[in-house]
Amino acid sequence: MNTIQDVAQHAGVSVSTVSNVLNGRTDRMRPETLARVQEAIASLQFRPNTLARHLKTGDTPLLGLLVPSIANPMYGYIAREVETYAQERYGLRVLIGNTYRDKDKEASFFDDLLAQGVRRVLVISSLADEQHLENAARRGMAVVSYDRRATAGADSVVDHVTPDNYEAARMATALLIEQGHKRVAFATMAGMTMSRSAKISGFMDAAVAAGIGQGAQMLEGGQPTEYGDSVVSEVGRLLGARIGRDPQRPTGIVAVNDLMALGLMAGLRDAGLRVPEDVSVVGIDGLFLAALSNPALATVVLPVPDMARAMVERVMDRSSRSPAGCREMVFAPTRVMPGGSVAPPPDAGNSLAQKPRTKGKAQ
Amino acid sequence: MNTIQDVAQHAGVSVSTVSNVLNGRTDRMRPETLARVQEAIASLQFRPNTLARHLKTGDTPLLGLLVPSIANPMYGYIAREVETYAQERYGLRVLIGNTYRDKDKEASFFDDLLAQGVRRVLVISSLADEQHLENAARRGMAVVSYDRRATAGADSVVDHVTPDNYEAARMATALLIEQGHKRVAFATMAGMTMSRSAKISGFMDAAVAAGIGQGAQMLEGGQPTEYGDSVVSEVGRLLGARIGRDPQRPTGIVAVNDLMALGLMAGLRDAGLRVPEDVSVVGIDGLFLAALSNPALATVVLPVPDMARAMVERVMDRSSRSPAGCREMVFAPTRVMPGGSVAPPPDAGNSLAQKPRTKGKAQ
Repeated sequence: MNTIQDVAQHAGVSVSTVSNVLNGRTDRMRPETLARVQEAIASLQFRPNTLARHLKTGDTPLLGLLVPSIANPMYGYIAREVETYAQERYGLRVLIGNTYRDKDKEASFFDDLLAQGVRRVLVISSLADEQHLENAARRGMAVVSYDRRATAGADSVVDHVTPDNYEAARMATALLIEQGHKRVAFATMAGMTMSRSAKISGFMDAAVAAGIGQGAQMLEGGQPTEYGDSVVSEVGRLLGARIGRDPQRPTGIVAVNDLMALGLMAGLRDAGLRVPEDVSVVGIDGLFLAALSNPALATVVLPVPDMARAMVERVMDRSSRSPAGCREMVFAPTRVMPGGSVAPPPDAGNSLAQKPRTKGKAQ
Repeated sequence: MNTIQDVAQHAGVSVSTVSNVLNGRTDRMRPETLARVQEAIASLQFRPNTLARHLKTGDTPLLGLLVPSIANPMYGYIAREVETYAQERYGLRVLIGNTYRDKDKEASFFDDLLAQGVRRVLVISSLADEQHLENAARRGMAVVSYDRRATAGADSVVDHVTPDNYEAARMATALLIEQGHKRVAFATMAGMTMSRSAKISGFMDAAVAAGIGQGAQMLEGGQPTEYGDSVVSEVGRLLGARIGRDPQRPTGIVAVNDLMALGLMAGLRDAGLRVPEDVSVVGIDGLFLAALSNPALATVVLPVPDMARAMVERVMDRSSRSPAGCREMVFAPTRVMPGGSVAPPPDAGNSLAQKPRTKGKAQ
């Protein structure tokens, strides 16, 4: 196996120059030198002894990624984008942890990452209290929090990357308003996160601006036992069935995310209603599953690849600089993806009670 | 920060006793001693310098998990089960890598894991050629291959954990046969893996045993550009639309997995057909998405939690023993989950050309 000395000799440079290349300290290096070292590394198929090297630099080429549950397709999508970019751009491997949005699990993961020598971590959580993130950052970790904005005025040492959740919910609501809906609802699960809260504000502001604030309501499903695969959609399904049985039900629903929207559609079908003839449903995320559903789910598409890149860039930037000057990056939704799940309301505002109950295509 | 010396002093034992506790060598320790050390570790909030410790033991508490793409909900589901069990049972963190079933990417990941000191890896791949896995195992890694059986008679040092793919496809086909289907097809994407091959055998044997071998065909969709989220279902969707335009089309289809089945259902709808009135569809996996689809997708449920536990157990067992005596564990499908996607065939065997084309609920 070739050593760093072999690479230096092959390139005709010093060992410390090779070391600088391996550790990314190439800012002041002449391009020819860099090219020569890179050629030597490639032609000797040199693989540095990463573990020993990192003991010296106190750094490991690992990136921690904490998600509520990797079994949730939205987090799987984000994780794929993060891993691909981190690997191709920086040679980082990704360490994934499921936290179920449990603060203790998140904190314990930070301890393990630190013990492992990992100094970079992305946290998808959106909890209101980020003290454990701040603590980890003050202990020397570069921490990027996803899916919530920074707390205004707080002295934070954590970066924030987030979709504009307020705007996403506003756009989703506008889709219903354009079709003439007056009784609209925002559907979410029990338990509040910062992203849910921002979406509720966007929904309510859109309804009030359109003069239908009085007909706008929030519908809360059960508390998921964990943030897993089937759990969010199952909460949506039960909520959909409950909405279906309510004669005063809304004609249009904005779901907190696509998985809940897919569950809502199934639950409304369970109750014998048709989407969109009886109730329209809009999601938020732009998951590939939206286009597969029957009818296709209209949804607000979030710029996941851009946000994944931004998270990786930020965490790399932070791990090479002082914790001062942390940033907040808010990404506008990409677009509204139309779908068959949205149509004009069935009765243009009359009571549904006067209309014969339509039996949907029950299975 | 407390050191191992502090813990030894606090517990009134030697440093090597504390080290034995930290490294799990407690078999011959007196319970009181163990309890005293554990109490000292807890009350001093001692966290061993894992990185330095692992340099000495040559081991890190990390488990590599290679998947075609973590954005595929089935792999997300398996990864969640693996991570949860590995963490709770052995305190292992999981390192995830997307390989897109590319042999070079898999091999390069092995190199990086070894450089990182990781000696345990689970590989979800099902490639016919496993030479790179065998090489990694001979270099000292404990390797478990998922989703294919061992090569008969080969001198393998890799463990294999897999669902009984043959049996799963047989059960899925039986569901169609019970409903009276005579023109059945197995739908898959281009490119062969060991699991696909086993499923095709199970499908054909079931058809032949039922006396409908002549009406059984294999339908191959496009080659996915990557094994990602939308890609498998998109291949299924295009294939579904193609099947829908064929007057000699099958009345019942077994899909290679649930994602492809969901894509097929969307593609058949695109072509103006109804599921199950015109064509029945069965999946394999038992993904939570099957129950959400409209109609609900009938599918053969695989025992993912059991298989995930077996993979973790095997890789732990192998990493503490010699590579001899590697095992193959084949898991029977859990059950058939019925769904509205299956019904009797539309015409009991007559040519569909005589039947007026039914326009489905196009979106």
